[in-house]
Amino acid sequence: MQETETEYAWQPVVAADWRDDACVLLDQRLLPAEERYLVLDGVEDVAAAIRDMVVRGAPAIGIAAAYGAVLAYRQAGADTGALERGLAMLADARPTAANLAWALCRVRRAAGPPSADAWRAALAEARAIHREDIEMNHQMGRLGAALLSGRSAVVTHCNAGALATGGFGTALGVIREAWAAGKIAHVFAGETRPWLQGSRLTAWELARDRIPVTVLADSAMSQMFRRQHPSWLIVGADRVAANGDVANKIGTYGLALSARHHGARVMVVAPSSTVDLDTASGDDIPIEERESGEIWAATGADAAPAGVSFANPAFDVTPASLIDALVTEKGVVESPDPKALAAVMARP
Amino acid sequence: MQETETEYAWQPVVAADWRDDACVLLDQRLLPAEERYLVLDGVEDVAAAIRDMVVRGAPAIGIAAAYGAVLAYRQAGADTGALERGLAMLADARPTAANLAWALCRVRRAAGPPSADAWRAALAEARAIHREDIEMNHQMGRLGAALLSGRSAVVTHCNAGALATGGFGTALGVIREAWAAGKIAHVFAGETRPWLQGSRLTAWELARDRIPVTVLADSAMSQMFRRQHPSWLIVGADRVAANGDVANKIGTYGLALSARHHGARVMVVAPSSTVDLDTASGDDIPIEERESGEIWAATGADAAPAGVSFANPAFDVTPASLIDALVTEKGVVESPDPKALAAVMARP
Repeated sequence: MQETETEYAWQPVVAADWRDDACVLLDQRLLPAEERYLVLDGVEDVAAAIRDMVVRGAPAIGIAAAYGAVLAYRQAGADTGALERGLAMLADARPTAANLAWALCRVRRAAGPPSADAWRAALAEARAIHREDIEMNHQMGRLGAALLSGRSAVVTHCNAGALATGGFGTALGVIREAWAAGKIAHVFAGETRPWLQGSRLTAWELARDRIPVTVLADSAMSQMFRRQHPSWLIVGADRVAANGDVANKIGTYGLALSARHHGARVMVVAPSSTVDLDTASGDDIPIEERESGEIWAATGADAAPAGVSFANPAFDVTPASLIDALVTEKGVVESPDPKALAAVMARP
Repeated sequence: MQETETEYAWQPVVAADWRDDACVLLDQRLLPAEERYLVLDGVEDVAAAIRDMVVRGAPAIGIAAAYGAVLAYRQAGADTGALERGLAMLADARPTAANLAWALCRVRRAAGPPSADAWRAALAEARAIHREDIEMNHQMGRLGAALLSGRSAVVTHCNAGALATGGFGTALGVIREAWAAGKIAHVFAGETRPWLQGSRLTAWELARDRIPVTVLADSAMSQMFRRQHPSWLIVGADRVAANGDVANKIGTYGLALSARHHGARVMVVAPSSTVDLDTASGDDIPIEERESGEIWAATGADAAPAGVSFANPAFDVTPASLIDALVTEKGVVESPDPKALAAVMARP
């Protein structure tokens, strides 16, 4: 391990950044109990941090990977093999997030072949990716908030906030913007087993902004839809296929079914880098299967009984037919289909 | 506390029993790590054990309460006030389970007014309730298993097994019977936050019987329905209203929505003591709201951030319109409605 630990008194929350010639990541596994930042100066450490959920959320993973690629360039110097190994390590860290491959591709194109100085161009590009992500979040926040009318409860899942992005957030960016406009009465969030991004991260983020939020067990959300009549389910995305199918945190699909059944609309908020036109449909999105111990450990027993198996898919696919609005920084696609999505993606 | 701890080498699993002049409860909060039995000789202890989830599952709660009522009679002697206080303590321990009030009513009717000897008649009635529950489970197991055809995967939720009843189980009784008949290929179970009855209890019970089971986070069940094509969702019930609406462990409603969406059928298995014809519909069933700490504690932080609230309903209501078959020991009600349910309940 080449990492050290430092505390920064940052405002607002920044999940991934470049400081003092190193990649700095807020260790989200420790929130809300502790706000600790890891200072990483090796590409291996950034890849491990992405894999081990120090940083999570598709856009934030992309930004962390971009800073990781800067380290890969700096470590490799003029050694092509070393650079490829470093970038491959990052690419393999999480299989579902489209932004990861996209960010690596951008940095590689900007920095060109490995050389002693290429890392400086890589860093400029990583910083551009980061800055643009924040700008896109604000743009999506405005576009998404405009879809809400009146004042009502909304629902979110997992954390698609400042912690999942360069800052501000995708789904939570829309919620922040709509809250400021007086359109939100209350936010309901599922706790998001097994990593509890809802109860640990979304609750923490919204509380900092004094936006009222109630957290429930994921299994309690269907009844909440029936009782509380929220107007919208607003979530992020880890990958959007060409037909509008959306891979997002496990549980999103069930929430979308509940939303549709109870007359709530479904909004997916994601930068265009999350849209992968090379993936035809949700069936073609690789779904990361994580270690079963993430489920089993909660029981407190040392080992699962013989004969019991645990499945731990990290994402599910919500079909385009359940999605009312896909909000990107390039525009809104209502009831997404391949043609409408391609048209918005073709915008500059 | 008037309790002591003893280990019994019981086969099969018994959640609640009367041994050595005391009520013995398997402490289900410790499973699967530890199999510990509490020997309780005070009605206060039995009421606390029911409230604190030592024993859970509507039929098992009924049996525990019946044995608790024996203690209430024994402690009260001829003191009417003391008896009423003891019985009220039991009645208030969990608000949703219909079997609790039903069991207390039966014991009271059998034992009559308080007297030095009334506890013996109470005990005979409590034992009868226990014995009949096991017989009913076997009968429901046969009736429910007959509804399955072919050989396919099935889904269950929470624990409606031997641990939730006098023995054998309601939903798991059907699954045991259908498994023995070669009709079940695999069982899928949600972990059932926050108490993890799925990953702790159902997995443990089914593994003991060598029935293959896969446990997933509750939020992963909708995608499981789409991918695994289970034929039935088979669950227990804590209370069935006169119109066929079913209160059961939180999450059942969402699973029933997923089942209906994916073409799986929904079976509710519950003894007739769970049916409360005095409750018109699910809207009239009191839903126990448990401490929010049961949700919050999993985050590992000492306290929730200011401004964050947690909701923790223990049950939800699945409308009769989503239920394909209600299996009681008196018979099966398909697509339950008030008339059909009343007709089956009127059987001897």
